[in-house]
Amino acid sequence: MKKNILVGQSGGPTAVINASLYGVVTEGMEHLDDIEHVYGMVNGIEGFLKDTYLDLSLGLTQKELELIKLTPAAYLGSCRYKLPKDLTSPFYPTLFRKLEALDIGYFLYIGGNDSMDTVSKLSRYAAQVGSSIRFLGIPKTIDNDLMLTDHTPGYGSAAKYVASTVREISLDASVYQQQAVTIIELMGRGAGWLTAASVLARKYEKDNPLLIYLPEAPFDFQSFTGSLTEALRQRPDVIVCVSEGIMDVSGRLICEYNDEARLDNFGHKMLTGCGKVLENFVRNHFGIKARSVEVNVSQRCSGMVLSQTDVEEAALAGSFGVQSILNGATGKMVAFSRRTDQPYSIECTLVDVNEVCNREKPFPTHWITKHGSNISPDFLPYVLPLIQGEPKRHMSQGLPVYAYRR
Amino acid sequence: MKKNILVGQSGGPTAVINASLYGVVTEGMEHLDDIEHVYGMVNGIEGFLKDTYLDLSLGLTQKELELIKLTPAAYLGSCRYKLPKDLTSPFYPTLFRKLEALDIGYFLYIGGNDSMDTVSKLSRYAAQVGSSIRFLGIPKTIDNDLMLTDHTPGYGSAAKYVASTVREISLDASVYQQQAVTIIELMGRGAGWLTAASVLARKYEKDNPLLIYLPEAPFDFQSFTGSLTEALRQRPDVIVCVSEGIMDVSGRLICEYNDEARLDNFGHKMLTGCGKVLENFVRNHFGIKARSVEVNVSQRCSGMVLSQTDVEEAALAGSFGVQSILNGATGKMVAFSRRTDQPYSIECTLVDVNEVCNREKPFPTHWITKHGSNISPDFLPYVLPLIQGEPKRHMSQGLPVYAYRR
Repeated sequence: MKKNILVGQSGGPTAVINASLYGVVTEGMEHLDDIEHVYGMVNGIEGFLKDTYLDLSLGLTQKELELIKLTPAAYLGSCRYKLPKDLTSPFYPTLFRKLEALDIGYFLYIGGNDSMDTVSKLSRYAAQVGSSIRFLGIPKTIDNDLMLTDHTPGYGSAAKYVASTVREISLDASVYQQQAVTIIELMGRGAGWLTAASVLARKYEKDNPLLIYLPEAPFDFQSFTGSLTEALRQRPDVIVCVSEGIMDVSGRLICEYNDEARLDNFGHKMLTGCGKVLENFVRNHFGIKARSVEVNVSQRCSGMVLSQTDVEEAALAGSFGVQSILNGATGKMVAFSRRTDQPYSIECTLVDVNEVCNREKPFPTHWITKHGSNISPDFLPYVLPLIQGEPKRHMSQGLPVYAYRR
Repeated sequence: MKKNILVGQSGGPTAVINASLYGVVTEGMEHLDDIEHVYGMVNGIEGFLKDTYLDLSLGLTQKELELIKLTPAAYLGSCRYKLPKDLTSPFYPTLFRKLEALDIGYFLYIGGNDSMDTVSKLSRYAAQVGSSIRFLGIPKTIDNDLMLTDHTPGYGSAAKYVASTVREISLDASVYQQQAVTIIELMGRGAGWLTAASVLARKYEKDNPLLIYLPEAPFDFQSFTGSLTEALRQRPDVIVCVSEGIMDVSGRLICEYNDEARLDNFGHKMLTGCGKVLENFVRNHFGIKARSVEVNVSQRCSGMVLSQTDVEEAALAGSFGVQSILNGATGKMVAFSRRTDQPYSIECTLVDVNEVCNREKPFPTHWITKHGSNISPDFLPYVLPLIQGEPKRHMSQGLPVYAYRR
C-alpha cells in the first residue's frame, strides 16, 4: 500500500540544506510505486503541529527544483523545537495522529544535533507504540560536529566561504605598511572545524592567517601575547582567526570577558564578540592598530562560493535517505564513510541516530599545533576534497536568483 | 624622447582597483614609441618617497596581468598620505627630484577624494615650477561619492556584493516564524550610495529589506519606531539596512548613542557600530528578537561577485588615462559620462581634478522616500547597469587565485 513521505528542515540554515531537500523530493518521485506524495513541513515539526505543510510532489517544476538545489538557507523554513523528553507526554499521540491522518509512512528530518534528537525520540516512541512509521535523519551543519560521519553536508561550502573570505580580508589588510592586527571571528561555539578551514586561505607558507584559535584548545592571553609578538616580527599585517567559542583553561568563554551573554531557547549561550575582546586587548597591550571582523551569518547562508562536492553530497544524502527508509531503515541517520582521500571517495552508510544526537565531534587535538595557535598540514587531505568544484549559479540582472515559497 | 610612466594606488581597497592598474600597464605597453617603462609605486606616494617601486613593464606575464585584473585590494599596496598644503614645502622639490631621476613623464594615481588632492597639488606645483611632468587621477571608490563623474569604478562590484549579501541574509532571516529584526550595517560614512544598493536585494515588491537608512536623511528614533511597527505588521522577519554613518538631525552619529559603550575586563571602552545600537534599541523597545550584522571589509575586498561592467570600466579608466596623459592632459581626473541608461552607454571624459578633490557627492535626496526609510525605484535605472555580468574567476583547488607581490 502506498504511503507518503514527510520531509522537514530544522536548525540553522546552511548553503546546501536545500540540496538535501532536492535529493529527497527527486528520489521520492522515482518511487511512485511506494509513494503517493512527498509533503514538506513548513517550519519543521513546529509548523507541522500547526498543520502547515506543502505538497512538494505537485506544483514544483524541474526548473524550480534545480533552483531550490542551489538556494541557501531553508526553503521549507525551519524551527528550533525540542520534543518532550518524556515519551508518555500527550505531545506524541497528538503528533502521530496528524501523521496518520496524512498517511505518512516515512518521516525524514534534515538537521543537526537537535534535529537528530527529534528523530531519536520519534523513532523510539514509534517502537514503543508499535507504529509502522519510519523516522530517518539527514545530516546538516556548517559546524561539521556530528558523530559517526566523516563530515556533514554544509561544512564544505561554509569552509570554502571562510577560506575565500579570509584570503580576501588578508589581501585587504596587506595594502598598508603600518603594523596592524586583524581579528577575524568565525562561527563555531563548541567545535572549531570551520575556523580550522581558515588555514586554507594561505597562498604560501607563512602567509596569513598567522594565528588560528579553536575552542578545542584553551586560550591563554599570555601565550597569545607571545605568539602575536612573534607573528609581528614576520610581517606588519597579522591576521588572527578565532572561533566565536574560544575559552580559557577554566572553561570561561573569551567573549564573556566583556560580561555580556544571554541564553537562547535551547539554553545555548548567545555569544557576542570574542573578536572585539581580542581587538581591544591587542590595541591596549601592543599599542598598535587593531580591528575585528565578525564574518557572521554569511558563513551559513552565502551561495556565492558553493562547493560542488558539498552540493552533490547533500543531494546524495537526501536520495540515499529515501532509498534507506523505503528499505526499512528507522531510527538512523545517513552518514558518510570515507574510503580514500586521494582519489577522494566516500560511501553513504546508516548510523544509529541515538549515538549521534546530543553529542559533538570536536576538532582533533592532534591537528592543533604551536600551543593552540596553528593547524597541522595533516588536516589538509581531510578538508581539501570537501571544497572542490563550483556549480554554475543562476544569475539574473546581475544578481543571484534564489527560490522562495510564495 | 621617451619617458616613463609611474602609477600608484592610494586609499582603501576596492574589488577593481587592480583592473585600473591592468588598464594602465597594458595601455602603457601599447605605446612603446613614447614610453620606456611603466613603474609602479609600492604603497603609493609614501612608499615611492622611500624609493620602493617596481618595473611593471618587465617581469609581468600576460597571465599575471590577467590575474591582477580580477584580484581585489591593491596589488601595489596603498597609503593614506596627505601632501603638504603649502606648495613651497621642501617636500615638493624632494619628490620631483626623485621623479626626474627616474625620468618620469607621466604620473597616474588611482584613488578617491584624498588621492585626487594629491594629483591636484602635484599638478599645481608642476605648473608653478614649469616642470613638464604630467599628473592624472583615475577614480576609485566603493562609496561612489566623487564629483563630476556618473559613477566610480569600484562601486558596481561593491553594490553587487551588498545586494547579493543582503538577499542571502534575508533568506537566512526568513526561516523562523518568530518575530525578529535583523539590522545590517553597511559601509558609507558620509554617502549612502552603497547602502542604497541594498534595495536591489528585494526579490519582489515588499520583500526585505523593508527599511533602508542613509546618512543623507536625518535618522529619528521615533520615526524609526513607527516605520518598524508598520514593517512588523507586514512580516515577522524584518531586515533594516543602515549606513555606518547615519546621524540624527543635530548631526550626531547614531553609533555614538552607544551609552553602553561597555567596558571590557581590562577596563577599556569597547566601541560598536550603529547596527549594535539599533539592535539594542529594538530589543529593548519592542521586546522582540534582534540581531545585527556588520558586513564589514568584504564589501570592498571581495572578489566573489564582481561586476563585469565594473571590471571593464575600471580597466577602461586606466587605459583612457594613459591615452589622455600622453596626449597632454595634466591636472585632470578620468570621469564617466552616461549617454543613455537603456541601452547602457558611457563615455570617458576628463574633468578638472581641483573640482573633484576634497568634495563629496551625496546620494540624491529625491531618491530617498518614506520619511528617509526607503529608496525610490527611480534609482534602479541608474544602478542596475553597473552591476551586470560576472567575469570568469580564476579558481584552483576550490579556492580563488589572487595575484600578490612576491
